[in-house]
Amino acid sequence: MVFKKHCLDKLHEECGVFGIAAAPDEGIDPAAETYIALFALQHRGQESCGIAVSSNDKIMFHKDTGLVPDVFNEKILSELKGEIAIGHVRYSTTGSMKRVNSQPIVMSHIYGDIAVAHNGNLVNSKELRYEFEKNGCIFHTTNDSEIIAYMIVRERLSTDSIEQAIKNAMKHLSGAYSLVIISGKKLIAVRDPNGFRPLCMGRTGKTVVFASESCAFDAIGAEFIRDIEPGEIVTVEDGRITSLDSGIRAREALCVFEFVYFARPDSIIDGVSVELARQAAGRCLARRNKVEADIVIGVPDSGISAAMGFAKESGIPYGVGLIKNRYIGRTFIQPSQGQRQRAVKIKLNALASAVRGKRVIMVDDSIVRGTTCARIVNLLREAGAVEVHMRVSSPPFMHPCYFGTDVPDRIMLMAHNRSFEEIREILGVDSLDYLTLEDLPETVEGLKCGFCNACFTGDYAVKVSDGLNKDILGGCADE
Amino acid sequence: MVFKKHCLDKLHEECGVFGIAAAPDEGIDPAAETYIALFALQHRGQESCGIAVSSNDKIMFHKDTGLVPDVFNEKILSELKGEIAIGHVRYSTTGSMKRVNSQPIVMSHIYGDIAVAHNGNLVNSKELRYEFEKNGCIFHTTNDSEIIAYMIVRERLSTDSIEQAIKNAMKHLSGAYSLVIISGKKLIAVRDPNGFRPLCMGRTGKTVVFASESCAFDAIGAEFIRDIEPGEIVTVEDGRITSLDSGIRAREALCVFEFVYFARPDSIIDGVSVELARQAAGRCLARRNKVEADIVIGVPDSGISAAMGFAKESGIPYGVGLIKNRYIGRTFIQPSQGQRQRAVKIKLNALASAVRGKRVIMVDDSIVRGTTCARIVNLLREAGAVEVHMRVSSPPFMHPCYFGTDVPDRIMLMAHNRSFEEIREILGVDSLDYLTLEDLPETVEGLKCGFCNACFTGDYAVKVSDGLNKDILGGCADE
Amino acid sequence: MVFKKHCLDKLHEECGVFGIAAAPDEGIDPAAETYIALFALQHRGQESCGIAVSSNDKIMFHKDTGLVPDVFNEKILSELKGEIAIGHVRYSTTGSMKRVNSQPIVMSHIYGDIAVAHNGNLVNSKELRYEFEKNGCIFHTTNDSEIIAYMIVRERLSTDSIEQAIKNAMKHLSGAYSLVIISGKKLIAVRDPNGFRPLCMGRTGKTVVFASESCAFDAIGAEFIRDIEPGEIVTVEDGRITSLDSGIRAREALCVFEFVYFARPDSIIDGVSVELARQAAGRCLARRNKVEADIVIGVPDSGISAAMGFAKESGIPYGVGLIKNRYIGRTFIQPSQGQRQRAVKIKLNALASAVRGKRVIMVDDSIVRGTTCARIVNLLREAGAVEVHMRVSSPPFMHPCYFGTDVPDRIMLMAHNRSFEEIREILGVDSLDYLTLEDLPETVEGLKCGFCNACFTGDYAVKVSDGLNKDILGGCADE
Amino acid sequence: MVFKKHCLDKLHEECGVFGIAAAPDEGIDPAAETYIALFALQHRGQESCGIAVSSNDKIMFHKDTGLVPDVFNEKILSELKGEIAIGHVRYSTTGSMKRVNSQPIVMSHIYGDIAVAHNGNLVNSKELRYEFEKNGCIFHTTNDSEIIAYMIVRERLSTDSIEQAIKNAMKHLSGAYSLVIISGKKLIAVRDPNGFRPLCMGRTGKTVVFASESCAFDAIGAEFIRDIEPGEIVTVEDGRITSLDSGIRAREALCVFEFVYFARPDSIIDGVSVELARQAAGRCLARRNKVEADIVIGVPDSGISAAMGFAKESGIPYGVGLIKNRYIGRTFIQPSQGQRQRAVKIKLNALASAVRGKRVIMVDDSIVRGTTCARIVNLLREAGAVEVHMRVSSPPFMHPCYFGTDVPDRIMLMAHNRSFEEIREILGVDSLDYLTLEDLPETVEGLKCGFCNACFTGDYAVKVSDGLNKDILGGCADE
Repeated sequence: MVFKKHCLDKLHEECGVFGIAAAPDEGIDPAAETYIALFALQHRGQESCGIAVSSNDKIMFHKDTGLVPDVFNEKILSELKGEIAIGHVRYSTTGSMKRVNSQPIVMSHIYGDIAVAHNGNLVNSKELRYEFEKNGCIFHTTNDSEIIAYMIVRERLSTDSIEQAIKNAMKHLSGAYSLVIISGKKLIAVRDPNGFRPLCMGRTGKTVVFASESCAFDAIGAEFIRDIEPGEIVTVEDGRITSLDSGIRAREALCVFEFVYFARPDSIIDGVSVELARQAAGRCLARRNKVEADIVIGVPDSGISAAMGFAKESGIPYGVGLIKNRYIGRTFIQPSQGQRQRAVKIKLNALASAVRGKRVIMVDDSIVRGTTCARIVNLLREAGAVEVHMRVSSPPFMHPCYFGTDVPDRIMLMAHNRSFEEIREILGVDSLDYLTLEDLPETVEGLKCGFCNACFTGDYAVKVSDGLNKDILGGCADE
Repeated sequence: MVFKKHCLDKLHEECGVFGIAAAPDEGIDPAAETYIALFALQHRGQESCGIAVSSNDKIMFHKDTGLVPDVFNEKILSELKGEIAIGHVRYSTTGSMKRVNSQPIVMSHIYGDIAVAHNGNLVNSKELRYEFEKNGCIFHTTNDSEIIAYMIVRERLSTDSIEQAIKNAMKHLSGAYSLVIISGKKLIAVRDPNGFRPLCMGRTGKTVVFASESCAFDAIGAEFIRDIEPGEIVTVEDGRITSLDSGIRAREALCVFEFVYFARPDSIIDGVSVELARQAAGRCLARRNKVEADIVIGVPDSGISAAMGFAKESGIPYGVGLIKNRYIGRTFIQPSQGQRQRAVKIKLNALASAVRGKRVIMVDDSIVRGTTCARIVNLLREAGAVEVHMRVSSPPFMHPCYFGTDVPDRIMLMAHNRSFEEIREILGVDSLDYLTLEDLPETVEGLKCGFCNACFTGDYAVKVSDGLNKDILGGCADE
Repeated sequence: MVFKKHCLDKLHEECGVFGIAAAPDEGIDPAAETYIALFALQHRGQESCGIAVSSNDKIMFHKDTGLVPDVFNEKILSELKGEIAIGHVRYSTTGSMKRVNSQPIVMSHIYGDIAVAHNGNLVNSKELRYEFEKNGCIFHTTNDSEIIAYMIVRERLSTDSIEQAIKNAMKHLSGAYSLVIISGKKLIAVRDPNGFRPLCMGRTGKTVVFASESCAFDAIGAEFIRDIEPGEIVTVEDGRITSLDSGIRAREALCVFEFVYFARPDSIIDGVSVELARQAAGRCLARRNKVEADIVIGVPDSGISAAMGFAKESGIPYGVGLIKNRYIGRTFIQPSQGQRQRAVKIKLNALASAVRGKRVIMVDDSIVRGTTCARIVNLLREAGAVEVHMRVSSPPFMHPCYFGTDVPDRIMLMAHNRSFEEIREILGVDSLDYLTLEDLPETVEGLKCGFCNACFTGDYAVKVSDGLNKDILGGCADE
Repeated sequence: MVFKKHCLDKLHEECGVFGIAAAPDEGIDPAAETYIALFALQHRGQESCGIAVSSNDKIMFHKDTGLVPDVFNEKILSELKGEIAIGHVRYSTTGSMKRVNSQPIVMSHIYGDIAVAHNGNLVNSKELRYEFEKNGCIFHTTNDSEIIAYMIVRERLSTDSIEQAIKNAMKHLSGAYSLVIISGKKLIAVRDPNGFRPLCMGRTGKTVVFASESCAFDAIGAEFIRDIEPGEIVTVEDGRITSLDSGIRAREALCVFEFVYFARPDSIIDGVSVELARQAAGRCLARRNKVEADIVIGVPDSGISAAMGFAKESGIPYGVGLIKNRYIGRTFIQPSQGQRQRAVKIKLNALASAVRGKRVIMVDDSIVRGTTCARIVNLLREAGAVEVHMRVSSPPFMHPCYFGTDVPDRIMLMAHNRSFEEIREILGVDSLDYLTLEDLPETVEGLKCGFCNACFTGDYAVKVSDGLNKDILGGCADE
């Protein structure tokens, strides 16, 4: 018998960052807090993780492939002593470079050590890399973080401060980057001018923290202060917080998929609760609903909130129709023989008592390739559902993302070049509906900045060079 | 800084068993199927697991401490070749004996090899062990399984078949035991005459399977046939299924906590859907409810279904108020410094957008020590809940269990010697209500056998010798 | 490319045991001392190892497959707290039972816990096992230690003390057994009446130690007191040492192969220095030498001493002709492609500067299958040796050993049914000579007991039942 | 009890490199051959190791801390597919940077990937690094290899070929560097103009190999062709070997300590057999000997050959007086309590039968700190030696090495500011003698190049900047 590694969770996730500048005398252990915060951000990346700490301008780090609780243990954490720490959870990359590409990246330059953790994706990395290489620079990784570090270090040579160097470097960087950086005694948080990826600031006592999502603050008992503004550079040194504006004006473009799928429901991003955004999407769908049904169910985990919103708006009862194995999230080897249906059965099981003999409305957050989706529909039918109506709490996914969301090649996308009716038939559902582009603004009502919906529209906030598409895309063949 | 191991999940769980007799020519790999089935039963035990396979009367096995995906890999599974397999997931035991006590236990006796996997707890194990030791027997473990094996082997010496030996052995065994056994070319499933623990039979093609819960059948694509009867011995040999009645009549006593907490909601036990039982409990609670509230929330995972039942019956809207970290279920080291509140924050976070300014009804399945419960209430208040009303979907837990449920010493139990009002105050809730004993039958309506509710009443279906209490109890100091 | 596990060291090794009863107030950590002692005995077994400690009549243990430094770490050792400890290094066994068969074996019986570590091999284990199984006993391992424990426990039921039980048990045991046992507060050392395997006693302060070889005492800074007599039972309790004679008279039969190959040269066994015995064997060979040569070399490690004895006696200069890789002793995967010669090259390399153009006398301790030997000869010729004369410092190996030495099936033995001339030709040497049976006594002059040379003569000190041969033999197909 | 990691082997070792360019159609697996070769070079570095392979201009690698058999397994090796491979074993570096500093270092630059493995130490690395950093370069490691790569890449920008770039880069590099490099389809071997570290070339079929020592060729069945000349650049591409002279003339300075201690006795370096060099040193010592004695013994492993040379020349019989545990070479935790003597006892034991009552001449290759040496003397006295005369087969070690030999701070050196008589007293020997500087040339008679003996004389072949001393030195406090 042959086994293959099976991806139990969807793969189009990205990265999470965290930073902490501990106030003296508060008894805070930065590495330990980072460890807890990364665990709270684990949903943003499961492939590798790392922590870097700075003490007396010297940076130590530990990083490896694996989940946070597996990569770190007491001994390792206790050796990571310092006053400032940053951490990273990473989704992605392939093959033998996994370990070398894990973050934070720690480097030394003429003025000392620097550590960088990065969430996002540059769209001009090829050009920048070529420019550096033309001058004799060498690269150890394929991470954008290394390019960003080079750019900062280059600018640092002709400026007085690291903040100014970052400001100058940002003029050259195009694309998505939420960064936490350690340089000397400074902890610095940076968000790209478009604000593609979230980044927020919190506080516990006089200790300052930064994170991709506010749920990390809850985990360590810190309170949320505010989001980092698009284009803002926030520096913490000796407890003082200073803000520098990059001065770059750009179309605000927070990734709307953060609300649809990426973020934890208990996070608040740029003023909007992820949970409420999902419920609102469900309500929008319900208002467009044209079918009678007995139960509304959500596909765990990210379809649950929208399903509840749908149920409330429509008056059709909400119920749990699919049970997820609590222990997924780790590598699980899967026997290759037997029906392909098995892959999804290991992860999900239909609750026959809930769906047998029922007309079911099944809400999921998105359809990417559609393979998993079709299998779930099949599960429900085997469990006795007499009708399955699919409602998707985001518009059809039709365009690649160049800013950090890992999506398959366009040709693999379910919605690419297919009519609704074709998709409905492939999925084997009785009816199908998506959220519309027009509904989107309502779902993120109150958002403090503009958002990017290019994956639905193809309207990118930043010009993307040709041929980039193919380079950045990869992923799991089995959705 | 000092760390301590922190139990992220509640600990009062027990064990799960699985067995498979593969029909030839169906391309079934028994070890691989067992691996998948054990993963589906992982919620019944996370401390150790094991698989034994039999080929040509020779039994091989692999077992160790850890979760199923961590203990087994491709190489190990591919070496476990055979026609019959049994598996076990185990909660519990302490200290250096963990590995030696993992199951299945494989032994050899005069007629060959035998492998035993056991869910439950004997109440006369001390006496039986003493009796064997008096005759010069030696024990390698502290497992009941070894005592059961001794008893079977002793009886086997004076009978013609293993089934008859098991029947005779059962006369001496008192307490809870759901067993799967490999002996020669036979796979045998045994359930104690009280039926304390569940055990069911399924089929895929001509391959026969047994499992603690039917959700394991779903995972491998097998169909449920029927439950094993209390006191029944079912043997599979060369595809033929034969049933032998032990002839022992006893009060039927299926553990009601299987419905309250242990089992997966998608399992059906002795005719009753676990999910529906939980919803029914919530409905019963709602009918007794005396307070007005804005939202009903459940404590994940096992309080969710009851909360939904409560919401439906009461008309108060159901909502998600607590978000659980998806990645718990593994060892997570916890910084010892800082507030104790942290332990629960790593696991759960309150959804402020759902509870802020609201009167919250919070439903949980049970209160054991109450420590975690009080912390969750605190989380909700910090998130802005103006009132927190606790509803518990089982009666007060007041008596130890001797049949496989790991509960703390009576003196640690929240409900022990405390009035409702005292408990309410300790938990810090505005009101408190429990399911009543009278409600219990309604929650498991249609159950094909009697149930045991001794943990609520002290009325044990089997006589328990004095002093047993202290011996079998242990557990995690931090609930 | 396909790899296979390759045995870098010869395999016909056996086991080592150690025991320590720490005097209070001497600051001795029994587990730590055992760890060091086992490392000194590592040459007696590399497949698995274990330590059991006793504290307040409760025995804890840790054991696993692997070398001593790999199986134990600080954390594990620090948890093994107690006043008495025993340890074991084990060669042998195959397949999935490796871990379960590792020693010491710890069991509980009616009077408490018992731990047993065993070096040797019973010749009536099948009969004994059958006898126990007939009475309903079950076995977890295929170790003789478990049978021995059963026998002791059975006898213990009808006697007052563990020593007396051991004495009675010994009447039933036939074959080789050097044992260290923990029972209650007692540490007990036992040597079979034939004295097949070595066992000695030492002391450091008031702490008493036992070991297979005296080199273990040197490693922990203890001094040698005396050997355990064949048939003697030595008990240490509260610092008092008592000796009990089993009363069984038997032909003394210390394994002569301990001197030839097994033991470390710095050990002294039953009054004879292993190093001096090997040198004496070399001298005997030299006196029989009929060829002129330029250099005498030894095959590392066990041929070195004999080569030096040969050189001194013959006047032909001794030299180092073969260099052994210092890092062997661990699992090394070997590419299967390419010449088979490679296997030996990874382990040994010829020193061209020493043998080029020389007539070489190559001394090895024994020839078992002869495969490795032929390859070494080839190495020397490739390095430029013009003549290779092989001298073997033991007589031809012609009969299986039933007492703990793992030798291949008789038909695989080089000396089986072959004339000297045939062997010489197969090995590709210019001349060949063996030590004679008549020389043997001279090599172990001063030995305090008789020795067993049945592997050379077939004259076994204990009657061996038919068919045993096949059962106990196994080993590495590639010598 | 507290444990500490104990260094079982001397630490003043360095690194080993290997490279292979496999001819097509010869069925050679470069990664597998490199694995075997690195195992043969394991004595040159035990802390970390790595292999990089190139296929179609793309380089993959695997490296980690640990010994060769522990870092690599079948799966890892089978994934390292390619036509060219290089490997590295590394001694040294401290703390958390161990893994990041392991080699080969793989980087990408404007023309593609490059992999570098380096043995030696630059003396102008600080200056070079500063120069690069001044231009905005960033460093991931503290390895000289990264500086060398930068230099090559910088020169590559203004030249046509990698060989020419290396030639130009060499003008800037000062110190010791034996390199193997993969660049595109080329395997390149480079030796610094002083020839500080050895490097040789071999062949098997049409496959070309490079190694630090010829013993690696023996291990894989390749034949030695010749040494790489000081200042030579040898390139292999498509089976063709081309040589380029760097044109830099410098004082030839092969490290004489390669013969004294580093290299394996079966290696031949620049025309001289390591074994014969050691024997010659022993003979020189014997000629200066002024005492009568009964036995000459060597301290394993590197003192053995010199002791044999001494014995032959003096007529005093050679004997084995110290037995080394075969299983050292791995991490062994050592109980901290008890006498410090223990550290050496775990590694070595005196052979009482050889030295009791004897006047012993003990030969060791060198005295660095002297701590271990004094303990060995003590071992011999405890074993009954009546006199111990120490003979050291190299001159007194008085000056730090800047070219790759890790020696402690000068102040820690036994010979620093101490008279012979003082040293003799500290070591506790009856007489003491060293090899003289005048003897050195005789020991390496026939050497094809000049050698460096600066560690004895302070006469460095290359100018060393002030303050370098302190920076490069570190090591194990316990010798």
